[in-house]
Amino acid sequence: MARDHAPPRRPVELGPAEALRLLAGVTFGRLVFTRQALPSVRPVGHLLDDGDIVIRTHEGAALTPHGEGSDGRGVVVAYQADCIDAATHLGWSVVVVGYARLVTAPDEIERVRARLEAWEPWHDTEQVARIRPELITGFRLG
Amino acid sequence: MARDHAPPRRPVELGPAEALRLLAGVTFGRLVFTRQALPSVRPVGHLLDDGDIVIRTHEGAALTPHGEGSDGRGVVVAYQADCIDAATHLGWSVVVVGYARLVTAPDEIERVRARLEAWEPWHDTEQVARIRPELITGFRLG
Repeated sequence: MARDHAPPRRPVELGPAEALRLLAGVTFGRLVFTRQALPSVRPVGHLLDDGDIVIRTHEGAALTPHGEGSDGRGVVVAYQADCIDAATHLGWSVVVVGYARLVTAPDEIERVRARLEAWEPWHDTEQVARIRPELITGFRLG
Repeated sequence: MARDHAPPRRPVELGPAEALRLLAGVTFGRLVFTRQALPSVRPVGHLLDDGDIVIRTHEGAALTPHGEGSDGRGVVVAYQADCIDAATHLGWSVVVVGYARLVTAPDEIERVRARLEAWEPWHDTEQVARIRPELITGFRLG
């Protein structure tokens, strides 16, 4: 349908601190990564810890560096969260791009699991990953 | 916080028809693509038209094939929509992978613009793109 009567939309670019604050205020987002050379995206729960986005995932294979391009820093992913009104489409969206790496320290894994709900508890291949933000962008539509 | 009292989560894999029906029932999703060799994701409004996902976008440059790998079919993207309860995290998520191509026929562009709200009307580089689904996956958590 045409929406001729919608209010004018005004974008405001978000700074990194404000964008991370909004991200921290919601409980889930979407992990964007490459799987078998195809773009892939999956909603997951998150928490913010020491500036990193921390998730529980069973996409460990896709987050494990392999072949050329692996330099020990992990795999580049994007992580997106938004809060957009279904009717007016006003709200905000934040995208973080950074290196994801799997957490291997058992005590850190336990600490995350105590704080972060498992979305897919039927998977026995679940791992914990941290995403260190390198590039944080976002906008608010109001 | 720990969520020991959450109800057990059960996944149901969605078939392509059901997944597309759910996608058609919401008004926006997230375009996942590659920009300057980095994963990128952006919320956009959509409509379903003749089995294609149709969007208005100013990411035309990223959706234009160039260099090797271009075979006239467009650029591979993912498109994701979900409806997930913020408190319980129950709901559904659908991901479509397919070729995106920019629409060039003026009458088709006008027809889309009459039906689909512009999210970023301040951009004068807006274009219309169609995504032909090649791979449709989704799940419902209930």
